[in-house]
Amino acid sequence: MLAEIITIGDEILIGQIIDTNSAFMGKELNKIGVDVYQITSIKDDKQHILNALEEASKRVDVVLITGGLGPTKDDITKHTICEYFKDTLVQNKQVLVHIEKLFEKYISTPISEINKQQALVPSTCTVLMNQHGTAPGMWLEKENTVFISMPGVPYEMKGLMKNEVLPRIQNRFDRPYILHKTILTYGMGESAIAEKIENWEDNLPAYIKLAYLPNLGNVRLRLSARGRDNKILEDTIEREVIKLKEIIGDVIVGYEEDQTIEVRIGELLTKKGKTLSVAESCTGGKIAESFITNAGASSYFMGGIVAYATQSKIDVLGVDPKVIKLYTVTSEEVAKAMALKAKEKFGSDYAISTTGNAGPSKGDGDVEAGTIFIGIATPTTVFSKKYIFGNLREQNIGRAVNKSLELLLGELL
Amino acid sequence: MLAEIITIGDEILIGQIIDTNSAFMGKELNKIGVDVYQITSIKDDKQHILNALEEASKRVDVVLITGGLGPTKDDITKHTICEYFKDTLVQNKQVLVHIEKLFEKYISTPISEINKQQALVPSTCTVLMNQHGTAPGMWLEKENTVFISMPGVPYEMKGLMKNEVLPRIQNRFDRPYILHKTILTYGMGESAIAEKIENWEDNLPAYIKLAYLPNLGNVRLRLSARGRDNKILEDTIEREVIKLKEIIGDVIVGYEEDQTIEVRIGELLTKKGKTLSVAESCTGGKIAESFITNAGASSYFMGGIVAYATQSKIDVLGVDPKVIKLYTVTSEEVAKAMALKAKEKFGSDYAISTTGNAGPSKGDGDVEAGTIFIGIATPTTVFSKKYIFGNLREQNIGRAVNKSLELLLGELL
Repeated sequence: MLAEIITIGDEILIGQIIDTNSAFMGKELNKIGVDVYQITSIKDDKQHILNALEEASKRVDVVLITGGLGPTKDDITKHTICEYFKDTLVQNKQVLVHIEKLFEKYISTPISEINKQQALVPSTCTVLMNQHGTAPGMWLEKENTVFISMPGVPYEMKGLMKNEVLPRIQNRFDRPYILHKTILTYGMGESAIAEKIENWEDNLPAYIKLAYLPNLGNVRLRLSARGRDNKILEDTIEREVIKLKEIIGDVIVGYEEDQTIEVRIGELLTKKGKTLSVAESCTGGKIAESFITNAGASSYFMGGIVAYATQSKIDVLGVDPKVIKLYTVTSEEVAKAMALKAKEKFGSDYAISTTGNAGPSKGDGDVEAGTIFIGIATPTTVFSKKYIFGNLREQNIGRAVNKSLELLLGELL
Repeated sequence: MLAEIITIGDEILIGQIIDTNSAFMGKELNKIGVDVYQITSIKDDKQHILNALEEASKRVDVVLITGGLGPTKDDITKHTICEYFKDTLVQNKQVLVHIEKLFEKYISTPISEINKQQALVPSTCTVLMNQHGTAPGMWLEKENTVFISMPGVPYEMKGLMKNEVLPRIQNRFDRPYILHKTILTYGMGESAIAEKIENWEDNLPAYIKLAYLPNLGNVRLRLSARGRDNKILEDTIEREVIKLKEIIGDVIVGYEEDQTIEVRIGELLTKKGKTLSVAESCTGGKIAESFITNAGASSYFMGGIVAYATQSKIDVLGVDPKVIKLYTVTSEEVAKAMALKAKEKFGSDYAISTTGNAGPSKGDGDVEAGTIFIGIATPTTVFSKKYIFGNLREQNIGRAVNKSLELLLGELL
């Protein structure tokens, strides 16, 4: 049971947008046992689309196509699919009524001819209603290959996937189980881990695959199992993880199924009835944002202060200027003071702070680019740690965010 | 002059990571006149890699490959490329010395056999030194197609692209000029714009292509010109934009070359010698973060308060609880008070604030999910605007960030 994702649109190829749709589709398909074999991103070009459809049909059982369904001239996917299926476009009443309703509710301008054309679909297709937009999804079949076309607008595609595409694929195809378990390690390099676990890795059952995913200072080990019996997969993965813990248990900091570290922190805080606040300098709001992105954050996340300028650490956060003078603004002492002040201001139980220089050049402080201090305040204590990263700004910010979440998680466990 | 990007790694196909590398490469290649024809993401599977290389060689002049160069067993790219070129691996002294240096400087553990194997490269390849990691880049040629293999770790790939790959491609190939100009519009739908500019669009020269890029409440129009004479391209684009302004000038809010709206705001603030702070509720630090991501933010960005819980709007930000009681926490008045308080606390000239309910369910306030108020304080005034988005959380947060930046940009222009 193989799938291919084809994303259509010049904006992806010239790097104007990052293709986040494919990752979403890959993850959702994987959950229901569909193996994504290839992702192909191509231009808004008729011949190129026709070639890609034909090649994909030889490789896989299901082809998911996104993009090129807008109402404007540069959107040619629908006409090209229609040509590929040697079909003609016909007006779909249900879609037309839906478009009229959307215009009535959200759009003040009258509905135009261009908008009405969004209700045209290939005559042999099954229409998949798009709750969030005017372009419908389309389901077509040719010689045992299913082709599904969806708009490229992420929330429209996501709605269609959840409400229409995934349930229909589950109905239509017999699928194996696919299980992943990701083990988070911290403090040991990829190759050092590989050497330590070589023997274990060589003895894994054939239906379990191991991948190393190094990322900003830590290595994740992903076990993927595939088979017909879910129970066997679960048991085997559990057994292998126990064996692995015996070998490198000292560097394993957690597990990740489909859960980010901030979601895990949120769950732990909610369970304990505790709250969190943050005081960020060099990470500039990224830690706060990583929590607030998740619905339900309001039950544990109180807020944060982005004290970017040194003066704002004094005026807004309330750090004692003497501490800054004595130790400099990028120091363990200031990181600790920031965490304590955030805790105090927001009346939270825990607090995270960051201060440092994300690079690439020297800032307010006197430390080298890439030097970052992270402070953690808990109900009973406060501490801070110093990290020296490289001189790549984005990278350093990401690393500092990851490290701070890891440190807090460590305290909560 | 066509290129194809092949990214190798199961983690992309199962959606564990989002492929940001391709967007970076696409953008950089485009800048030097290389047209990315296709992006193909495939598994760590020997036959699949061999097929992808062979197919790409028929389509394009340059194939850029990322991923699968790590030191562990799941990384098979190097051996597979070697097989494709019917070559053998030999040890490269320069790479070995580089690996030894990296270990000496950054890694406490002794260098192992696995690490040393990173210095093995196909005998016929040109080695591209990787400043940020142990796996070198490799440049190989076969029947007039160039194959370039790079690690998948983003900052390693970026370093290699900038220092080695792009200069070599510029040397090796004769390329046309490619120019893009993106026009930002606000307040009119995609189809309404299309109808208004239909005649203009139909009369564009053949070497200019128009694309519509709708995104969270605004539509960007991208003009792409390709040709041998840079001057002609520039002049024609300028002329066409003037014509376009005559038709839809009232909804054009700006232009984007390779610049985000926050970079533009930063430049304008720096030029005026003015500063900015933010007070965020539902956007949770995302506005602050969008500024701080850019180096140099410290010259204009003072900081921000993420006042997520209602109580923190009073305790930390200092909003008068009477105002909250009288108008509710999600109201124009509270948005204005938040912006003014941020301006006061941080001593900045401008301030942005957000308060609302990002959804999907009702929060502290009493407004429907998707209702967001944005406040803007300037040196002389303060105002706020109400927006009603949908019920998709991520989407609403993104829209609120975009709108707030647009509103501030409007004030600065």
